[in-house]
Amino acid sequence: MNTVSAEIITIGDEILYGQITDTNTQWISQQLDGIGIKTVRKTSVGDQREAILSALQEASQRAHIVLVTGGLGPTKDDITKQVFVEYFNSTLVFHQEVLDHVQSLFDKIGRKMSDLNKNQAYLPECAQVIPNQLGTAPGMWFEKEDCIYISMPGVPHEMKGLMNSCIIEKLQQKFQTPTILHRMVKTIGIPESTLSELLAPWEEQLPEHISLAYLPSLGQVKLRLSGVGEKAELLAQELDREVTTLTQIAEKYIYAYDNEEVEHIIGQLLKDQNASLATAESCTGGFIANKITNVPGCSVYYKGGIVSYSNEVKMSQLGIPEEMLKAHGAVSEEVAKTMAKQVRIKYGADFGISTTGIAGPDGGTPEKPVGTVWVGYSDANTTEAKLLHFPHTRQMNITLTYNALMNWLRKKLLKEE
Amino acid sequence: MNTVSAEIITIGDEILYGQITDTNTQWISQQLDGIGIKTVRKTSVGDQREAILSALQEASQRAHIVLVTGGLGPTKDDITKQVFVEYFNSTLVFHQEVLDHVQSLFDKIGRKMSDLNKNQAYLPECAQVIPNQLGTAPGMWFEKEDCIYISMPGVPHEMKGLMNSCIIEKLQQKFQTPTILHRMVKTIGIPESTLSELLAPWEEQLPEHISLAYLPSLGQVKLRLSGVGEKAELLAQELDREVTTLTQIAEKYIYAYDNEEVEHIIGQLLKDQNASLATAESCTGGFIANKITNVPGCSVYYKGGIVSYSNEVKMSQLGIPEEMLKAHGAVSEEVAKTMAKQVRIKYGADFGISTTGIAGPDGGTPEKPVGTVWVGYSDANTTEAKLLHFPHTRQMNITLTYNALMNWLRKKLLKEE
Repeated sequence: MNTVSAEIITIGDEILYGQITDTNTQWISQQLDGIGIKTVRKTSVGDQREAILSALQEASQRAHIVLVTGGLGPTKDDITKQVFVEYFNSTLVFHQEVLDHVQSLFDKIGRKMSDLNKNQAYLPECAQVIPNQLGTAPGMWFEKEDCIYISMPGVPHEMKGLMNSCIIEKLQQKFQTPTILHRMVKTIGIPESTLSELLAPWEEQLPEHISLAYLPSLGQVKLRLSGVGEKAELLAQELDREVTTLTQIAEKYIYAYDNEEVEHIIGQLLKDQNASLATAESCTGGFIANKITNVPGCSVYYKGGIVSYSNEVKMSQLGIPEEMLKAHGAVSEEVAKTMAKQVRIKYGADFGISTTGIAGPDGGTPEKPVGTVWVGYSDANTTEAKLLHFPHTRQMNITLTYNALMNWLRKKLLKEE
Repeated sequence: MNTVSAEIITIGDEILYGQITDTNTQWISQQLDGIGIKTVRKTSVGDQREAILSALQEASQRAHIVLVTGGLGPTKDDITKQVFVEYFNSTLVFHQEVLDHVQSLFDKIGRKMSDLNKNQAYLPECAQVIPNQLGTAPGMWFEKEDCIYISMPGVPHEMKGLMNSCIIEKLQQKFQTPTILHRMVKTIGIPESTLSELLAPWEEQLPEHISLAYLPSLGQVKLRLSGVGEKAELLAQELDREVTTLTQIAEKYIYAYDNEEVEHIIGQLLKDQNASLATAESCTGGFIANKITNVPGCSVYYKGGIVSYSNEVKMSQLGIPEEMLKAHGAVSEEVAKTMAKQVRIKYGADFGISTTGIAGPDGGTPEKPVGTVWVGYSDANTTEAKLLHFPHTRQMNITLTYNALMNWLRKKLLKEE
């Protein structure tokens, strides 16, 4: 069985200049991975004819499939379609059904179609057209000398629409691919090198077709186990066995598996206990509420929260006494505890959590430098606070606060702390 | 004057498999752009010797500078350093000062250094070592046959630390670069093709060294003007003149310039009017509060907010009558208006805004399908609500709600609506 390989090419000056965040390539490679196609390279080039031509040429020599996004818009900086015409030595032909579709999109929003949009109905003669329900630029599928080229718009939801509605299925029909499976094990509270030493004996006995990678991020290390095989079921069993062994070795550092994030785990624990949560945030400014409410169905266990950015709101909405703010300051153990307790009581929740700190870049003092954060926890029996220190930028300090607080809540819910 | 070109290579299976989001290349290309170095290509390859070797080889033929991130960790899946040794036909030599630094990092956190970390003090003989204050893997600078290679860790804040403390300055000393300047003009409420037609006559008269690009995203189109020249001051004046003309043509669609986001504009307008804001969020779940508090210094004008995810909290904290919820449902004009008004009064703010809707993926009904959102606005004189419909995924619907509501607030603050 041969590995089927893919290269992803993104086209656009805005990517090269760093003016937009490219989320397409990550998503595409995840989808390919899921159907056993191995991404061997990702390439970004600008909206220049020569650069696109050479990227196509090179990619076709490395990979069975070349997926291209971007440069299909109606404006004149978008030249991908023209370059494909040249690359395949083809010509543009008119597609009435594409024009009808573009027309229907404009009719729907009650606007007049422009000549630029009409041009989108001209496509290379050698292309198989892939209808784009969500936008004006269709996808295109080309085959030449045992290489498949797929051109898609760069707008993420349009690209995803094309992949999900047609391209993934077409690729699966075309190739017989080996099974590639991954398991992700997420740890927190242990540095990469310490974890690596702890796992070394187990890692060394892994069979050749299963590999381990360490993916460190803010305060966390994710472990990725990847297996390659012929039979999905057998491989899945093998990987599950390895995850079980890994869990026995490193249990106290593991907070989640696979696609789960800590907010999913917290949600599940709360559901299991038929319990509810409320949040009171100062320095995290709604970040925690936003993470928790990113989980569909969270309304069962999440009552809601207060973002108490001003001292006024801390006093009027969370009952923090003015004297407490004067004596200890807003960033203090007392305030963190009162916030957690008050929001729990006010919102009728079983658990309350809180943050108050100096996320930066300004607002630090010698006693309380930027990165000083108090987090609070309250349930019916106890109200506690913890002091954290982070040395990073505003956004990183907020994320680290979130990770630390959610891990604390997780341990509380598990009665581990 | 010759253009200085760069290629950015990111190394790591986790990027190819789509298991982490690569934010490094965007940031690096922004920095290079700022010092007049043009990124001509971005390449991602896995942790495989041959792939890294060929990427280095190819990049060196296209660019004057090859920046490499990733693969420098202490664990055995990280092979970048070994590959550099092979590529430059060099050997590893021991650096006492690097070991001392790694030791000091471990001393600081009171942990024992592992043998894996000790290995990080062995570096290719031909490398100039770039100290990494924030981590254990130093950066490396190589020169060979008129090409500069720079190797950095993949951990974003470590990479940024190396770039900011040393690499950018070193590159500026090495090269005399042309000036590249950009202006960004951000529009909302007009589709790309309509905007393009509106701007066509102006676009066509742009001088050759100034180019225009359309960057569409959720409900917005960003316009990027890029100029290349010798004298920064002259070029800046030229670009500013073009931005002035552009503003005259498309004023009512423009909400921000350059690095400003709509939350900065709102913040500035509130500061100018010495006014304050409070938020009441249901379906956006803290997203708005989080965006607003991402602006340092927002405590001057942002009082705080309520995330009222449950009906209980809508009733108890925002005074929504139970009868109103029964008669109209939580997603209704009445509830949106009451939320905006109540949070304004309760939080002592001049302006209150609110959201209540069905973000998805579940919770839709035939009358109120997923994507139905009411947004509310309240000031001392008026309280209003608007109905929005979005056809996308949960996260996109939330972002679109945010954009629409903030644009409405912006117009209200400008007395345009």
